[in-house]
Amino acid sequence: MAKNLEKLNKVLQKKARTKKVFNYAIPDLWNCFDYQGKEQVKTPWGEVIVDPFKFYYELVSKHLMKKDEANYALPLTQALNLEPSNGDWIKKATVYSTMIRTSATYDHDRSGNLEESNLYGFNEGGTFVKMLALIPLLKKMGITTVYMLPISQFSLKDKKGELGSPYGVSNFFKIDPSLKDKMIGDEMTLEEEFSAFVEACHMQGIRVMIDIIPRTNSVNSDLIVTNPEWFYWINYSDLEGYKPPYVDGVSATTAPKPEHFDKVYSSNEVKEHIRKFVVNPKESMPKKWAKVVKMWQDENNELEILDIIRNELNLTIAPAFSDHINDVQPPWSDITFFRMYNDHPDGAKGLLEDVNTAPYILYDTIKSSWHPGQEPNQELWNTLSSIIPYFQENFGIDGARIDMGHALPGELVDLIIKKAKAVDSDFSFIAEQLDSSLAAVEKENGYNMIIGMGFYDGPRVWTGNANAFYYGSANLATPVFACGETHDTPRIAARPEGKKTLSKMLTALNMFMPNGVPFINSGQEFYEVQPMNTGIDCRDDEAFVLDKEDPYYGKLALFDKYQLHYINEDRWDLVDMLAILKDIRNDYLNTLSNPEHFEGLGFTSPGDMAIGLGYVVEGEYGKELDNLVLVVANTNVFEGRKVYVNIDNIRNKSGNTSRFGKLIFSTHEWERDIHEFDNEGNLNIYMAAGEVKIIKL
Amino acid sequence: MAKNLEKLNKVLQKKARTKKVFNYAIPDLWNCFDYQGKEQVKTPWGEVIVDPFKFYYELVSKHLMKKDEANYALPLTQALNLEPSNGDWIKKATVYSTMIRTSATYDHDRSGNLEESNLYGFNEGGTFVKMLALIPLLKKMGITTVYMLPISQFSLKDKKGELGSPYGVSNFFKIDPSLKDKMIGDEMTLEEEFSAFVEACHMQGIRVMIDIIPRTNSVNSDLIVTNPEWFYWINYSDLEGYKPPYVDGVSATTAPKPEHFDKVYSSNEVKEHIRKFVVNPKESMPKKWAKVVKMWQDENNELEILDIIRNELNLTIAPAFSDHINDVQPPWSDITFFRMYNDHPDGAKGLLEDVNTAPYILYDTIKSSWHPGQEPNQELWNTLSSIIPYFQENFGIDGARIDMGHALPGELVDLIIKKAKAVDSDFSFIAEQLDSSLAAVEKENGYNMIIGMGFYDGPRVWTGNANAFYYGSANLATPVFACGETHDTPRIAARPEGKKTLSKMLTALNMFMPNGVPFINSGQEFYEVQPMNTGIDCRDDEAFVLDKEDPYYGKLALFDKYQLHYINEDRWDLVDMLAILKDIRNDYLNTLSNPEHFEGLGFTSPGDMAIGLGYVVEGEYGKELDNLVLVVANTNVFEGRKVYVNIDNIRNKSGNTSRFGKLIFSTHEWERDIHEFDNEGNLNIYMAAGEVKIIKL
Repeated sequence: MAKNLEKLNKVLQKKARTKKVFNYAIPDLWNCFDYQGKEQVKTPWGEVIVDPFKFYYELVSKHLMKKDEANYALPLTQALNLEPSNGDWIKKATVYSTMIRTSATYDHDRSGNLEESNLYGFNEGGTFVKMLALIPLLKKMGITTVYMLPISQFSLKDKKGELGSPYGVSNFFKIDPSLKDKMIGDEMTLEEEFSAFVEACHMQGIRVMIDIIPRTNSVNSDLIVTNPEWFYWINYSDLEGYKPPYVDGVSATTAPKPEHFDKVYSSNEVKEHIRKFVVNPKESMPKKWAKVVKMWQDENNELEILDIIRNELNLTIAPAFSDHINDVQPPWSDITFFRMYNDHPDGAKGLLEDVNTAPYILYDTIKSSWHPGQEPNQELWNTLSSIIPYFQENFGIDGARIDMGHALPGELVDLIIKKAKAVDSDFSFIAEQLDSSLAAVEKENGYNMIIGMGFYDGPRVWTGNANAFYYGSANLATPVFACGETHDTPRIAARPEGKKTLSKMLTALNMFMPNGVPFINSGQEFYEVQPMNTGIDCRDDEAFVLDKEDPYYGKLALFDKYQLHYINEDRWDLVDMLAILKDIRNDYLNTLSNPEHFEGLGFTSPGDMAIGLGYVVEGEYGKELDNLVLVVANTNVFEGRKVYVNIDNIRNKSGNTSRFGKLIFSTHEWERDIHEFDNEGNLNIYMAAGEVKIIKL
Repeated sequence: MAKNLEKLNKVLQKKARTKKVFNYAIPDLWNCFDYQGKEQVKTPWGEVIVDPFKFYYELVSKHLMKKDEANYALPLTQALNLEPSNGDWIKKATVYSTMIRTSATYDHDRSGNLEESNLYGFNEGGTFVKMLALIPLLKKMGITTVYMLPISQFSLKDKKGELGSPYGVSNFFKIDPSLKDKMIGDEMTLEEEFSAFVEACHMQGIRVMIDIIPRTNSVNSDLIVTNPEWFYWINYSDLEGYKPPYVDGVSATTAPKPEHFDKVYSSNEVKEHIRKFVVNPKESMPKKWAKVVKMWQDENNELEILDIIRNELNLTIAPAFSDHINDVQPPWSDITFFRMYNDHPDGAKGLLEDVNTAPYILYDTIKSSWHPGQEPNQELWNTLSSIIPYFQENFGIDGARIDMGHALPGELVDLIIKKAKAVDSDFSFIAEQLDSSLAAVEKENGYNMIIGMGFYDGPRVWTGNANAFYYGSANLATPVFACGETHDTPRIAARPEGKKTLSKMLTALNMFMPNGVPFINSGQEFYEVQPMNTGIDCRDDEAFVLDKEDPYYGKLALFDKYQLHYINEDRWDLVDMLAILKDIRNDYLNTLSNPEHFEGLGFTSPGDMAIGLGYVVEGEYGKELDNLVLVVANTNVFEGRKVYVNIDNIRNKSGNTSRFGKLIFSTHEWERDIHEFDNEGNLNIYMAAGEVKIIKL
């Protein structure tokens, strides 16, 4: 049962009856369900030309929709009445990270331009309806959770790039209108389309997670109108020259720990900075404010709220900047911070020149988790903690990542988690925490997992980082993402230290990382090289890794129109590999997702260019054979060589004494028997450059 | 006035009213008229997406059609009432050689496949209607004559390649049905479409020439039915093993001169070969023959005539082979020869074992120009000589090339020319004569020009051939083609000795060759590298010059579906250059087309890596300045250097003493003043690799 998917199916069925000729191209990766439409043309280079209505109708009716009685509009645990795990289902998940806008973008009319409305009047940018075509691909790769970058309405004012960043949210409770599908038109609302997408995922056993951003907001947020007191204000004339104030005696990019704040508040730049802030206009000039609100509500008005405020009041919202003292980054001109407390930070109260100064943005008010005040902004907190329930109750989502959660007041995090769990006790939370030494803290905070540093450590096979990451994560209090890239980092396939070979190796290995949740960053599965954003760990020229001739040279999906390189000759390489690995992973899922069964297979010295992940199959301890799964990678992605795999320890742990193994997977060779044991029963086996072998023993 | 073009215009106008969306791509080279349709989308790579009806309607109505009273269905000389020149208008022509099937082929629906009927039910292969879109391109390049490779119906039986060769004609008096445009459908006949194309050319001042093939015919020709006695017959069982008989004592590939025929007729292989031939079935078994004809005429019959003959009579038509004795080529299995005389060659009559032997194919009967009999096959000759009048009277064509004319009986050539001239005294004839030493003979035979060896000599800049060709052609009795390639030869841009640089140099120089008729082989203007056929002067791997990834790798347009590489980044390079050169050529057309005004500018020693073509402007002799046009090429296409241009002789001839020139064109630099004279008044000027400069003095 899935009200909105069924509605979509009927709309598509009706529209599929038209007799128009469509020269509408999709990449064949979107056709993992082997569409049977007679009108289709398969091009030699991997595009399929279809009638989109017929194509999506067959997709939905024959391959996505289930006829049973479960209500797939609910979170999956509730829909299928599964045993709740307090959100720990994420431990067994395989996650696909996608920005719908980008993953479902395609130049369907092949005009060389991603029009808002193409030759047929349809979107070329991503929509939830088009994203349905990726579900069979996700299934094929073994994906069980779709994690979506923000889908809420974001501000287009002074937008970055061609489209603006979805992280500059202007309304938490609206889906961004660019995601509305023009093929479907008025027959369904955007909310219904999103709901249909979640229902389709649920029907296919895929959970859906969102990304919420309670710490920052667009400077052009709709909330400014209703709650100007939740924001920080400056005179418009002070916007030019507005920047993070420099603090003498503190080194560059210093975390805003309390011990630095004597220096912070005695800095002249800080004093000057604080003096720029003014009281919010609802309080300081209520009549004029009422007029502003009226103007904005006027149907004939075409101005943004921030423009009206500038014109009428000569004020503006103060932009955000990094919470690190003396950070080199310029202000983030498109977003601002919420005022988390109605008073100044406790620690600042004795240091301020004038304790009645207007609310201000500074390293302590930003990082309010370390610098709380006395009076929580309860009304704001209520709003922020109702975002997830809104998405749970209206769309049945299954989990969320909280952006910059580490900077939120602890009590607010508690509130957010508590309210979500009240709706769905199996709701899962991911902390935006990179530092794995804080895994236990975040677990304590109520999160089910942390992000970790896989994107950084995984590709660093030459420095020992990779080995430390794969072995070291086993004992953490929460799982981390078994990943080699995220939407903020370089692509693995662009790493000079290995490119496609590295990408294939890590993508395979990540399916078997102890305490790791396999994570595919949309595009990774077909060796996309262009990052979506150059936020972390990027080279200076990371945005320019494509050929200059490429239409997306220098474009970043987070800001620009961007079509992933779905058409390339190796596009099926990792997808087909994952199709095999997901079956192996599923065969041993209980074993793999419980780090107790893990044992490292040597390669702990720096310079050991291999990784060996051993598992004793759950329930099979004490047997002499057939109870070990060994996953070995030659992390030297440039040279093949003999690799000595120490399996003494895992033999002791398991009781296995067998001298006869089965190669059940390799990135480089067919399945075969394994005899390459030495006298001690350890493996001494040839591995090609970057090869991953899985051996059953 | 142009009945059929007007009819086409009306059909297009009507069809342009439909509101369908077309994603129909054309290369931008087809849009030299700058189409204004609002629905069009210009892709960044050079395709334009259009509604084909609207596109062709605007093309015809606004850019091709003229409203005056001239009847453009007539040959151009008659339509415009021009001064007849006995066909010598060709001397001032600039010729574009095209196989309509290929030049107008495009994968309009971009399916990666050249369907007979694409997504919209339209042709992807060439049609006369689609060829209209190339007329603005031809105009831009200064083309004044379109020379078409055969357009008559050809046989599809045992066809070569994907489509078969248009040289295997099966009916001289029908246009090949593959050229019928499906966009137009039943609204016009193929003949009307062809006529509309000729009318459009004429309106744009472009003459149209055809290629006729009176010496050979398809083994599956319709003429077999009506006139079996015009063909040579063997038993079907003798077809296997049929080959040119070897003659002892004659070296390989010897021209069939009379002195060799004692040896020919005493060869055992020849005797055996002759014994295979049988009398035609109409004579030997008239009743059975009548039945065969009836079967073939039966509407329910789907068999080819040759199949019926094999099934019913166990006979077949003997295939053709080279007229050269002991040639290494295998028989040409798809074509045969006409029997030009009703008796055996005179010279053979005393040498034959049995003078009553059945008509046979041999080196002498093939080359009947050297080996006539006594009794011309008058009925056949009447048919062959009525082909051109058919095309004149029905389509108003302006000239023709006669394929293998040199092998026809001289009296037949006389008859063909006489009958054509009777219809249009200004009809122009091109002899398929490569040997320029025979120019005077061919002029005597009634031809207006010969092909010559430009395709071979022009690109050979390193061996002196090019210089000999450009200077040596000035004194020939007829013009030759100023060309660097034909449909039978390698492409200039594929020549390892220069590629695009060589192509640009020759294409420029050919516009100014003394006694040369500039000739562009379709595709040459955008650096196509793949030959259309590998008939002459090709390397062993000439058919494989494209990238292996290219969809047309190894394909030859003469036999296969082939799309010229209209989309490449240098596609406008030569076209834009020719647009400038045609104006210069037109300014001096009388001068350039009369070799009297020509004077070579040195570079006559082998190893002189330059060519200098000097012209004294007609009517300007005796002036001291402004009466010389100097065209100089650095034929070293790999290195720039100073070139010493000897202009003593042309100064003497013209009276010019000026020390001040104007560079009016260069392939490498802008127009500028020229001062680089030495004390003797000769030029000593830097020329880039492969540069062509035109200097007015």
